Amino acid sequence: MTRFDDERIGPLAEKIRTAQLGEKLSVRIIDIDAGRSIALMHENDARRLSIHMGDRAYIFKKSKRGAYGGVAIIDVTDTMVAEGEIGVFNDLAKSMKLNSRSTVFVTPREKPESVSYIRKKIDGCELSRDEIYAITRDIVYDNLSDIELTSFVTASAIYGFTKRETVSLTMAMVDTGEKLDFDGIVVDKHCIGGVPGNRTTMMIVPMLAALGLKIPKTSSRAITSPSGTADTMEVLANVSYQARDIRRFVNKVGGCIVWGGAINLAPADDKIIRVEYPLSIDSEGQVLASIISKKKSVGSNYVLVDIPYGRGAKIQTRKGARELGKKFVWLAGEVGMKLKYLLTDGTQPIGNGIGPVLEARDILMALDGEGPKDLVDKSVMMVGELMEFCGMSSKGKGAKEARRCLEEGRAKQKMQEIINVQGGNPHIKPDELRPGRYRQHVFSKTGGRVSRIDNMLISTIARTAGAPKDPRAGILLEKKVGDKVSAGELLFTIYSQTVVKLRYAVKLMQKSNPFLIE
Amino acid sequence: MTRFDDERIGPLAEKIRTAQLGEKLSVRIIDIDAGRSIALMHENDARRLSIHMGDRAYIFKKSKRGAYGGVAIIDVTDTMVAEGEIGVFNDLAKSMKLNSRSTVFVTPREKPESVSYIRKKIDGCELSRDEIYAITRDIVYDNLSDIELTSFVTASAIYGFTKRETVSLTMAMVDTGEKLDFDGIVVDKHCIGGVPGNRTTMMIVPMLAALGLKIPKTSSRAITSPSGTADTMEVLANVSYQARDIRRFVNKVGGCIVWGGAINLAPADDKIIRVEYPLSIDSEGQVLASIISKKKSVGSNYVLVDIPYGRGAKIQTRKGARELGKKFVWLAGEVGMKLKYLLTDGTQPIGNGIGPVLEARDILMALDGEGPKDLVDKSVMMVGELMEFCGMSSKGKGAKEARRCLEEGRAKQKMQEIINVQGGNPHIKPDELRPGRYRQHVFSKTGGRVSRIDNMLISTIARTAGAPKDPRAGILLEKKVGDKVSAGELLFTIYSQTVVKLRYAVKLMQKSNPFLIE
Repeated sequence: MTRFDDERIGPLAEKIRTAQLGEKLSVRIIDIDAGRSIALMHENDARRLSIHMGDRAYIFKKSKRGAYGGVAIIDVTDTMVAEGEIGVFNDLAKSMKLNSRSTVFVTPREKPESVSYIRKKIDGCELSRDEIYAITRDIVYDNLSDIELTSFVTASAIYGFTKRETVSLTMAMVDTGEKLDFDGIVVDKHCIGGVPGNRTTMMIVPMLAALGLKIPKTSSRAITSPSGTADTMEVLANVSYQARDIRRFVNKVGGCIVWGGAINLAPADDKIIRVEYPLSIDSEGQVLASIISKKKSVGSNYVLVDIPYGRGAKIQTRKGARELGKKFVWLAGEVGMKLKYLLTDGTQPIGNGIGPVLEARDILMALDGEGPKDLVDKSVMMVGELMEFCGMSSKGKGAKEARRCLEEGRAKQKMQEIINVQGGNPHIKPDELRPGRYRQHVFSKTGGRVSRIDNMLISTIARTAGAPKDPRAGILLEKKVGDKVSAGELLFTIYSQTVVKLRYAVKLMQKSNPFLIE
Repeated sequence: MTRFDDERIGPLAEKIRTAQLGEKLSVRIIDIDAGRSIALMHENDARRLSIHMGDRAYIFKKSKRGAYGGVAIIDVTDTMVAEGEIGVFNDLAKSMKLNSRSTVFVTPREKPESVSYIRKKIDGCELSRDEIYAITRDIVYDNLSDIELTSFVTASAIYGFTKRETVSLTMAMVDTGEKLDFDGIVVDKHCIGGVPGNRTTMMIVPMLAALGLKIPKTSSRAITSPSGTADTMEVLANVSYQARDIRRFVNKVGGCIVWGGAINLAPADDKIIRVEYPLSIDSEGQVLASIISKKKSVGSNYVLVDIPYGRGAKIQTRKGARELGKKFVWLAGEVGMKLKYLLTDGTQPIGNGIGPVLEARDILMALDGEGPKDLVDKSVMMVGELMEFCGMSSKGKGAKEARRCLEEGRAKQKMQEIINVQGGNPHIKPDELRPGRYRQHVFSKTGGRVSRIDNMLISTIARTAGAPKDPRAGILLEKKVGDKVSAGELLFTIYSQTVVKLRYAVKLMQKSNPFLIE
C-alpha cells in the first residue's frame, strides 16, 4: 500500500552539497507501518535545520556508491525521540534498509509544487489542468501531509470548482488510477442514495449481463445507511477484489458486483473523502468528479443515474433533481461517456427488506419471480431505459425485453454465474437467509391507509438494531405507502442479533414511529 | 505536556449501555508519547463500529468500581494493528494504566461541539464569543484532530475574522493560558519584524527597567530571519523559562528577555501557527489576536508597536503601515490596554551586526556607549515615546531621560542584572563575543554613495553562512545607506563556522550583491 517517494538524490554536486550541509542523526526504528513516508525529529534538531512540523526533508545514507535516500514529511516532537535521533517508521526503514545502528543525513527539502497550487486555491484562483493533475498525483502518492490535503479540501468546499476544474479533476482522478477496458458495449449505473432497501443494482447487473451487455459494477459499503450494495452482495459472495479480478469476471460472465473500496480505480477519491468526512464537507464538483471518474475508469460507454427525490429523500424537489441530473450529463459528455438520468420516487423504501440479509433475500426472491413488486418494476424500467439508451433495444421495447429476461429465468441464472465467479454459493435459496435471532413485530394502532414511511427513521432503527455490522439485523416491511391497514395489523418487524440492540431499536421506534397511518 | 481528556463515563445507565454495545479489543502498547490522545484501530473493527478515521471513541476498562476511561481520536489502519487489537500510545496507556495484557471496550463518541462551530465557519457564518471560546479551548487541550484544526484555520484565512470575532479570539487565547499580573506600570513592545539586526528590544528592556517600569518581555526565535531576539539574547543568558520564572525575574530586577515558545501564555497561538506554517496562510485577525493576546497575558498596560515600512520591509507604504497600526490600537483598546504605534524606517538593517553573536556584540557596545548610532537612536526614541505614553515623563522629555539613563550607565547595569538572573555571565565584554572562524571581506568595486542595502539578500546570505543555527555566523556591516565609499573600501564581512557554508554564502553574494552604490 505504501508508495515510497524514493527519489534518488539528483546530480553528484547535489549529493555532495547535501552530504556536507546535512545533519547527522542516529536512527530509531519505530515499529509501525505508517503507510506513508514520515519521520520524527526532536524539536532542537529541527530548529537547527530550520525544519518545521510538516516540512519535507531528504533523508539519506552514504554508501560506497554515493548517497541514496528519499523524502519524508517531518513530524517535530520533544518527547517521541531524543535530540540527535530520528524516528523512522517501518516503511522508510525497509525502503532505505535502515536498522537501529544506522546513521542518516537529513537536510531540508522544498515542498512539492502542488502545495503552491493549493495555496492558489486558498486565494480563490482557478486552477489549471496541470495544477489539478499535480495535486491529484500528490494526493494519490501520499506526498501531501494531512494539513496540506485538508487545506485543499476545505478551500475547495468553500469556493467550489469551476466547470473547467471539475473536468480536470475528473480526468486527473481517472488517470492517476488503474483503468479497465472491455470489448463491446459497457454500461454502468449509479444511484445518489438515501433510499433504504433500494438494491436495484443487484437486479440490474444480472439482467443486463444476461442481455449481452458488459457491466463491471463497483459498489460502496454503508456509511450512514443500514446497508450498502457491497454489504448486501457480501451476504451472497465475496466482494473484496482487485481490478484484475473485475476484468476476469466481466470477460467470463459479463458482469460483477464488487466493493469499490479495495480497488485502485480513481484512488484520489477515497483519500479526499477521508478528510471530508470528519467535517461533513463536500463540494458538488468533487462529488460529481468522484462519481464520473469511477464510471470512466471501468471503461463505461453508457451510464444510467438514478436520482430519487421527494420528501425524505436526499433531494427534495423535482427541480433540484433535474438540475443535478443535467450536471451529470454534462460532465460525462466532457469525458466521453453517454449518460442518462432518471428521476424516481424517493419518498419511501424500495423493496421490503432493510439490512444486508433481508435485502439479499428480497433479491433472490425477485430473481425467482416472487420479490417485492416495487423493486422488480423499478429494475425492469431501469434496464429497459439502458437497453434503449445504448441501442440494444428499439424505442419502447426495452422494458419488455427486460421483463422477459427476468421471467424466463435468464437473470437468475446469470446471478448464479456471478455469485459463482465471486466465490459464493450459486444455489443458495431465499429461505436459507435467516434474519436476526431476536425480533419485534410492530402492529398498527389504528386503521386507515399508510400515508408515509420515513426513510431516515427506518434507517436509524435498522442501524440501531445492528445493521450493517450484524448482517442479519434490519427491518422487514409488511406494508408500503398507499396500502390499507386495519388496527392490530402487522406493519413491520425489527430483527436483531442481541436483545439489548433490539430493545434500543424498539425504544427508538416507540419515540418516533416511521409509519404514518391516516 | 499532554492533557488527557479523561472524562469519566457519565451516569451508570450510560456505562452499562456502552459496556454492552462496545467492542472488546486487546491492547497493543505503542511506545511513543503522541502528545495527545490517539488510538489505532484496524479498519475491519472500525467499520463494524461505524468509526471512521478521525472519529472519537470512548475507550474504557471495566474495574470493580465500574467502568473508567477516556476519549481518543481514532486513526484507522490496515497495517499498524491487527484485527481485534487497539494500538494505544504511551499517553493514553499511562493515564488508563493499560499494559499489553489489557483489554478495553471501545464505542463511538460524538464529536466535540466545537466541530460544528468549525463547520459554521466553513459555511461563512460569524461565530459567537462562546463558539470561539469552545474552539480555542479544544485547540489548547488538543481535542481537535489535525483535519479539524486545519479546516478551521483554512476557513479563517479565506473568510477572515469580523471585528467581534477578533476580540473574542484574543480574549479566548488569553483566558485559555496562564496569566501574569504585576504591581505598578507594566509596559511592552512589539515589532512586526522584517528588518535584519533590529534588536531594539535588548536595549529597550534594560532602559525601561532602569527607569522604574516593569517589562516582562517574551520574544521569538528566528523562523526565516538570521536571528530572533530570543536567539540573540541566548548568546548572553538562558532564555527557556516558565511563566513563574518571568514573575520572579520581573519582581526582582524589573525586566527580562525570554523565549516565548516555552511558556504557556496564550498557547492556542502556537498550535494554530503549526498548521498555518506549511501553507504560509494567515488571517490578519488571527495575527492581531495572537500578538495582542501575548501582551495581555503578561499583564501589560501600555504597549508600543514598531512598524518598519518602506522598500524591502514587510509593509511597503506609509499608508499600509498606518492602517495596520490603527488596527493594533483598536484591538488593544477592546481588551483594556493602551497601545501606540510608531512608523519607522524599514528600508535597511538596523545596527551593524546580523546574526546572534554579532548582534549581541552590538548591544553590549551600545550599552557601553559605543554601539551603532542608528540602533542607539532608535532605542532612545522608542523608550522616550513609551515613557511619555505611560505618563512617566512629561511631554517632550522622554527621549532626554532615556538617553541620560543610557549615558549614566544605568541601562548597562540593569542589563547585567537581567543577564545575571537569567543565568548568564553579567560581566561579559563585547570583544569576548567572537564571530565565526572563517570570514570573507567584501569590498566596493566602485566609488560613490550607498543608496540601498537589501534586507532580504542580507538575511539570506547570513542564513546561508549558518545563522542562527551557528550563532557565530552572520554579517558585519561597515557602511549604511547614505555613507560615502571609495572603490576598494570594505562594505561588509561575512562570517561562518565552516568553509563550505562560507563558500555558499559568498557565491550567493556574488550573484546578487545586497549593496547598491550610486
